[in-house]
Amino acid sequence: MLADKEGLGPSLTDQVVASFAATPDERLRTVMQSLVRHLHAFVNEVELTEAEWMAAVRFLTATGKMCDDVVRQEFILLSDTLGVSMLVDAINHRYATGATDSTVFGPFYIDGMPEREFGETMALTPGTPALVHGRVLTTDGEPIAGAVLDVWQTAENGMYSGQDTAQQHGNLRGRYRTDASGCYAISTIVPVSYPIPTDGPVGKMLEATGRHPWRPAHMHFMIDAPGFRTLVTHLFDEGDPYLGSDAVFGVKPSLMVAYRERPASDALARQFSFDGAFREARYDFVLDRGLKE
Amino acid sequence: MLADKEGLGPSLTDQVVASFAATPDERLRTVMQSLVRHLHAFVNEVELTEAEWMAAVRFLTATGKMCDDVVRQEFILLSDTLGVSMLVDAINHRYATGATDSTVFGPFYIDGMPEREFGETMALTPGTPALVHGRVLTTDGEPIAGAVLDVWQTAENGMYSGQDTAQQHGNLRGRYRTDASGCYAISTIVPVSYPIPTDGPVGKMLEATGRHPWRPAHMHFMIDAPGFRTLVTHLFDEGDPYLGSDAVFGVKPSLMVAYRERPASDALARQFSFDGAFREARYDFVLDRGLKE
Ligand SMILES: [Fe+2]
Ligand SMILES: [Fe+2]
Repeated sequence: MLADKEGLGPSLTDQVVASFAATPDERLRTVMQSLVRHLHAFVNEVELTEAEWMAAVRFLTATGKMCDDVVRQEFILLSDTLGVSMLVDAINHRYATGATDSTVFGPFYIDGMPEREFGETMALTPGTPALVHGRVLTTDGEPIAGAVLDVWQTAENGMYSGQDTAQQHGNLRGRYRTDASGCYAISTIVPVSYPIPTDGPVGKMLEATGRHPWRPAHMHFMIDAPGFRTLVTHLFDEGDPYLGSDAVFGVKPSLMVAYRERPASDALARQFSFDGAFREARYDFVLDRGLKE
Repeated sequence: MLADKEGLGPSLTDQVVASFAATPDERLRTVMQSLVRHLHAFVNEVELTEAEWMAAVRFLTATGKMCDDVVRQEFILLSDTLGVSMLVDAINHRYATGATDSTVFGPFYIDGMPEREFGETMALTPGTPALVHGRVLTTDGEPIAGAVLDVWQTAENGMYSGQDTAQQHGNLRGRYRTDASGCYAISTIVPVSYPIPTDGPVGKMLEATGRHPWRPAHMHFMIDAPGFRTLVTHLFDEGDPYLGSDAVFGVKPSLMVAYRERPASDALARQFSFDGAFREARYDFVLDRGLKE
């Protein structure tokens, strides 16, 4: 701890905390005063040097400059890789309700993607064909008709459309709706593990700290239905080698699916127009009734 | 504190801390692991909402985007207004050596400013004429010849050259040298109190928290001499109304000067070519022997 040279008067930290005492919004006051105490405690604990402080200023500046208005949000990536995103997720979804677990939103969502028919493919690039289907249910097990599933995943090259300019608009993205019996069906490709972008400050941080940038294969879902809380989650491939070391700490055991092999002769092949063998993954999502946040 | 839904396995914070265990550089490992613990403790303590997390991402992104390559460094401004800069300063200059106290560097320094003669004016814009002079000494009271004083202050409009495109290159900036008896002399104008820039995210933060953006009038010094530690400090006007509420917490009682009125007939007026009444401020700086940081 820091010895006050003068030995009198409030500590610097107390002075800074006091400077926020007149914040009109009580919640903002609480957040800022807590931030100052914890930030100062960190700086004190490690006895941050001036060179390290300057390196931090440069790192944060470069992180801001790396962000664009499309799909690159380097501060979300930083939050993700420091486990802050999952912590916020855990705090805000901590009460067991019987609803499906949530996980990180990630930086790659794009709003306004194409509306897709039941079972329509969202894959405009090649891969192992897959059907992902199941139901959207209430916590009482009742089907929810007309739920919207906003879905996104990477191409086989590990990149999202928007991030990879070679991919067409809407590739491996789309908005599906449940039918009258709460069923959804997505024709797509089996997702692959991919590295988070390493060409920015977060990549440098991972490299300097000996961490790998890989995420286990997953498909993103944001599921919305009137009268229910929005669910932001992933489905992970249960066979992925990175499940134990996700670069963003997003894995939860309840979010696993198996992509099972199905022959061209399977009844589902006919129903969903697969012209060869494919994989099938089934998952039922459960939404929590309640106010939107 | 956060209850683990599953009730087993290491906490998320422990997982994230463990992910840094293989960091090759021991110091970086210490800093990152401490950062994660304190950042998570903050998020847990305030139970940060998802909307607040997104607001923080947007705030940090805008802060990075506000920085330019000249004199706008919004992350330094953020560090300054959260008292982090002064805390780093205190930690790194905590041992009383008899040397002059340091204070914040601030975001407005520009390297490579004009070399100026003993007593030369650095003011190309109007104001109350002033002579700032004194000596640069060792902790034993011996004069240091050839010390370089890199000096910067705002114009009467409260803006630094570089920040204010209407000001000529080098206005109210310059590098002075001590003479053989360790004396320096700067002709300038009396500094004014000024608000830190409020047109960016830091300004929004101050406004939202009911804090004013004013800094008490000061002149910046970075003083360098071979064999001595670089001194980064300010001289404050002891009569300034903002001394008790500096927006960046930089004030120290040891860094006060008085700007005393001197008539046109004063001997110093002749020596330094003042053609009317002027103010005089005297201050002796003391440098600490030692390695550069
Ligand atoms: Fe992803
Ligand atoms: Fe200043």
